[in-house]
Amino acid sequence: MIKKYVYGTPFPTEAVVKDIEASDDKLSFFETDDKGSFTYTFAEDDIVYGLGEQIRGINKRGWQYVSWNYDNPNHHEDARSLYGSHNFIIISGKQTFGAFFDYAGEIEFDIGYTKRSEMKITPKTSDLIVYIITGDNEKDIVKQFRGLIGRSYIPPFWAFGYGQSRWGYKNEQEIRDVAQQHKAAGIPLDSIYLDIDYMERYKDFTVDSELFPNLEKLAEDMKAQGIYLVPIIDAGVKIEDGYDVYEEGVRDNYFCKNAEGDDFVGAVWPGKVHFPDFLNPEARKWFGNKYSVLTSLGIEGFWNDMNEPAIFYTEDRLKDTCAKIEKLTSENMGINEFFEFTGMVAGLNGNKGDYDKFYHNVNGRMVKHSDVHNLYGMNMTRSAFEALREICPEKRTLFFSRSSYIGAHRYGGIWQGDNKSWWSHILQSMQQLPALNMAGFLFTGSDTGGFGCDTTEDLMMRWLQYSLFTPLFRNHSALGTRGQELYRFGNKGAAAEIVKIRYCLIPYLYSEYLKAALNDEMIFKPLAFDFPEDEMAKQVDDQLLLGNELMIAPIYKQNAFGRYVYLPEEMLLVRMKSCENITTEVLPKGHHYVDIPLDELVFFIRKNKAIPFGKAVEHTAAIDKNTLRLLGYPDCLYELYSDDGYSPVPDNSLNISML
Amino acid sequence: MIKKYVYGTPFPTEAVVKDIEASDDKLSFFETDDKGSFTYTFAEDDIVYGLGEQIRGINKRGWQYVSWNYDNPNHHEDARSLYGSHNFIIISGKQTFGAFFDYAGEIEFDIGYTKRSEMKITPKTSDLIVYIITGDNEKDIVKQFRGLIGRSYIPPFWAFGYGQSRWGYKNEQEIRDVAQQHKAAGIPLDSIYLDIDYMERYKDFTVDSELFPNLEKLAEDMKAQGIYLVPIIDAGVKIEDGYDVYEEGVRDNYFCKNAEGDDFVGAVWPGKVHFPDFLNPEARKWFGNKYSVLTSLGIEGFWNDMNEPAIFYTEDRLKDTCAKIEKLTSENMGINEFFEFTGMVAGLNGNKGDYDKFYHNVNGRMVKHSDVHNLYGMNMTRSAFEALREICPEKRTLFFSRSSYIGAHRYGGIWQGDNKSWWSHILQSMQQLPALNMAGFLFTGSDTGGFGCDTTEDLMMRWLQYSLFTPLFRNHSALGTRGQELYRFGNKGAAAEIVKIRYCLIPYLYSEYLKAALNDEMIFKPLAFDFPEDEMAKQVDDQLLLGNELMIAPIYKQNAFGRYVYLPEEMLLVRMKSCENITTEVLPKGHHYVDIPLDELVFFIRKNKAIPFGKAVEHTAAIDKNTLRLLGYPDCLYELYSDDGYSPVPDNSLNISML
Repeated sequence: MIKKYVYGTPFPTEAVVKDIEASDDKLSFFETDDKGSFTYTFAEDDIVYGLGEQIRGINKRGWQYVSWNYDNPNHHEDARSLYGSHNFIIISGKQTFGAFFDYAGEIEFDIGYTKRSEMKITPKTSDLIVYIITGDNEKDIVKQFRGLIGRSYIPPFWAFGYGQSRWGYKNEQEIRDVAQQHKAAGIPLDSIYLDIDYMERYKDFTVDSELFPNLEKLAEDMKAQGIYLVPIIDAGVKIEDGYDVYEEGVRDNYFCKNAEGDDFVGAVWPGKVHFPDFLNPEARKWFGNKYSVLTSLGIEGFWNDMNEPAIFYTEDRLKDTCAKIEKLTSENMGINEFFEFTGMVAGLNGNKGDYDKFYHNVNGRMVKHSDVHNLYGMNMTRSAFEALREICPEKRTLFFSRSSYIGAHRYGGIWQGDNKSWWSHILQSMQQLPALNMAGFLFTGSDTGGFGCDTTEDLMMRWLQYSLFTPLFRNHSALGTRGQELYRFGNKGAAAEIVKIRYCLIPYLYSEYLKAALNDEMIFKPLAFDFPEDEMAKQVDDQLLLGNELMIAPIYKQNAFGRYVYLPEEMLLVRMKSCENITTEVLPKGHHYVDIPLDELVFFIRKNKAIPFGKAVEHTAAIDKNTLRLLGYPDCLYELYSDDGYSPVPDNSLNISML
Repeated sequence: MIKKYVYGTPFPTEAVVKDIEASDDKLSFFETDDKGSFTYTFAEDDIVYGLGEQIRGINKRGWQYVSWNYDNPNHHEDARSLYGSHNFIIISGKQTFGAFFDYAGEIEFDIGYTKRSEMKITPKTSDLIVYIITGDNEKDIVKQFRGLIGRSYIPPFWAFGYGQSRWGYKNEQEIRDVAQQHKAAGIPLDSIYLDIDYMERYKDFTVDSELFPNLEKLAEDMKAQGIYLVPIIDAGVKIEDGYDVYEEGVRDNYFCKNAEGDDFVGAVWPGKVHFPDFLNPEARKWFGNKYSVLTSLGIEGFWNDMNEPAIFYTEDRLKDTCAKIEKLTSENMGINEFFEFTGMVAGLNGNKGDYDKFYHNVNGRMVKHSDVHNLYGMNMTRSAFEALREICPEKRTLFFSRSSYIGAHRYGGIWQGDNKSWWSHILQSMQQLPALNMAGFLFTGSDTGGFGCDTTEDLMMRWLQYSLFTPLFRNHSALGTRGQELYRFGNKGAAAEIVKIRYCLIPYLYSEYLKAALNDEMIFKPLAFDFPEDEMAKQVDDQLLLGNELMIAPIYKQNAFGRYVYLPEEMLLVRMKSCENITTEVLPKGHHYVDIPLDELVFFIRKNKAIPFGKAVEHTAAIDKNTLRLLGYPDCLYELYSDDGYSPVPDNSLNISML
């Protein structure tokens, strides 16, 4: 059951799609106080699930989180905010229930940080809606919540293929080389991503005519090889005379305004920009229609970036900083002054104060950005989604975003942001997945191999062995880091085999994705969600259930060639060196140490289950659903969802066949 | 056997104390090339141990390390350099041998980073000594190496007590409060550290007369409570007229010079400073004698900091940066310019170019600092050690340092630097211990609870349960972070019990320390060092053998209340809630999942071993060696080393009694 409690005058976030009458009852579970906090007293063994993209373990107890969408490339243990705000949690233990704090501004979740036995949730202002969800168990609560927030985004079939990306691909020729090198190395590939490099001076909806003289031809040639180009779109619009997007936005008042009513100026990649007012329906429609500039060149997928929105600096703050620098450096700078100096410079980027300086036009009412900050990225993706649904109604377009709020899951996926080539970031990504699924985000995945810092071959192998299971399976890295396209490594054959196994699994992964989306279910679950009576399962935070048939337990430590795995029931251990070289072994319920050599994929099939498994192919287009074999326990069937992979999927269209 | 190979004209680092004749043979194991690299081709299963303080796992394969002492507060997975340079490695596998690259400048260890199957070691110039050590096994190689580099530093007995530290203790009253609060909460305490706050304007060998009006009295009062004050000493000497240390150093040319022969200026905590020329024996003696300013006030221990040396900025670079900032900010700063701007500011601190700008006077020869950079911290601690040996010959003084080179282990300990309140930093510290021991550094430990970032109560409990086993057991945190003195937490009683258990273990820990120091052995060993035939033991990198009797396997994950433990032989699991509440259980060789509640200490006693275990006391001074009981397997004896705990320990004075 879902109960809705309204406080003050909440901003309509549009996270929720179901109209529920507000309750007049006293709020259950939480104590409220005059500071606007919601306090829950933990029992010793309570577990807190949720918060979507936030860091640390599957159990969120013991840290302080702040929902404030933030371009934070440091997904470190002390991070309190990343790119998305997903204010849905489940408390599981003495009492089990879900709670969604629907609030567009900054809100803090102190989950036993200040006081181990206490959770305190504090929004910046007391204008919000709290939904309390009770049900049979965690899964039931998630299902009810997902019904409340609407169906998750469904990408095209080709989006389940392997994608290659890098910030720094120089020109058309390099893109063609990347495609060719994958082919030469026998590494399947469905997409190549275009980072900011393809644009003319980082202007949205432009293409650099020197570096990419004919993007349409390039897209066509690539598509002939089964490869889709996926360009990036940034939130900020460059201020440049003669640039149509800039000039139209100024003319029609589609940009966010400062207090004086002028278009607000921030600086991002292109230097100074205006920010489209995505909370203004007309501006949203106008910006969304711009995507047709690229779809008309044959583009069928996009990633939306920098839409927290990221602000590298504002003119005023930069001016103040420079004046201060001049003053500080004119004297003997000791520790205090030096830290002030470096702190001011570091504090230019994403400074919270800058978000108080601009406004949205919400149906004629000026709303301060910081009050609705967490909705910006969601409405950028919505802008694209709604427009493309009209521009290309006959097919699905790939969308995913960096920033999000609950509700954005209806318009696109999200990637897990600018991680690093750290071993711990394999585990971090994995621990985010169930919470993202809880919040409706099914199409997600991490930058495989790590975005920032230098990767190594063994890290890449282990990362592949994990992320081949995630819907979004993209290798992405930053300018200045070591190249990490798989063909660069010593044992590229082993990497190719892992990617090929992904393609054999796509029929299964796609089927589970669609079933989860259409049934409001999770793809990735903590073990305890399916084994609620198993005390050990509650402790496991480095294994996940995938769909209804699999359990994954990847390696995420350097120089580890085996790991401990807990089986909450008997399972079939599957060991693959390639799509053809497969061995299986039944393991009993309990603790196991499992050897996992660097070039082997190991996963588990649940008792009396089987999964469809295809053949190795070069592209998703070559996947033949008629040659699927069943892998798993003998004499078990699998409910296969299938469709044409590109037509929009109507609700209640669960096209299932038994395999 | 140790063989010595001399290349070019090596700088005499004084890492080695034994005179060995150089070999004319061809270097074994490594291939050399005309770029000055030493290349070793790995067998598939080779393990690389060593590199002292460097990050990542016990097995160093798969990353690129650079020996370049560096004030690096980011002990992240991508770090290549920390504060110390410990160029000793053991390759274990198809061929097992040790190699020490005795080189005072920058040297890179590419351990299968560029190419998984290859290790390439490249010094900046080809002037170095390479020692190749062969022996029966890893332990034998370590013992030979330790004999080569001389006996490890032996601290006073009280240094094994618990220490409380924080950057930011405001004044004498706060120090007294800290002592009192520990007493009130029943938390044993042997030392309180004074960070930079106690000095007058961050000037070495001064005491702020307002904040600490009578340090001698404070030290005396504290000592009456069994608590030693341990002040910090920084490398840089403030430039300030009338300040004796500054004026003497200028007068006698004891500071490093720039190319023009003027005293080199860098900036650190006090702003502009000169750096004592610790490579000049006279300057070293002069600086060392300054410690008597504090010993005359009753101080018996010091920590030497900022001695890489850290340089926040130099005047020239700051001037260039400011000019550049002015230019960049006068135009529309896009991505390239903004990153240049922020990069320049971030690059002021510890900029490598600055270390080319000053010189040491080595017996009349001017030596560029960057050629001998890694020796600076070692010679600062040597300066103190050698002087205090004369000033207070009757007793040991506590010394530890941040920066070090092999050889520094004879003069003092090191702490593991400015870590963070991250769960992963418990494991990181643990993985550094064996490699530090290999390099001679026995007196070491991490900042318990984490220095940077905010700690939590559960993190502190788990950290205590690990670091109570390390010789240096200090709680330390940074200004601006959450206070983490143990009495601040909800369940301070549980924390107090853990610290009390430390005191019960001190007779054992001290005994093992002294035996390791006097016998050139390690205190903390990887499991594989004692179980070389056990393939599983080679994989274990989150458990350590401690001395000859114990194995530790702490928890280092939030919300984990148990963990997997591998026993390479039958062992006795010991479970303690307090010094009196002890249960034991024999566990067979093999894999185990062990429950470890938050308030319980768990460790293991090896088969047919026992350890001495004392009673809970408030200070080390109250430890009564006559009331020791034996804990472990029945009818087993323990070889107890003991002495008065303060007299300097002569060589070959192994004072053992059977217990």
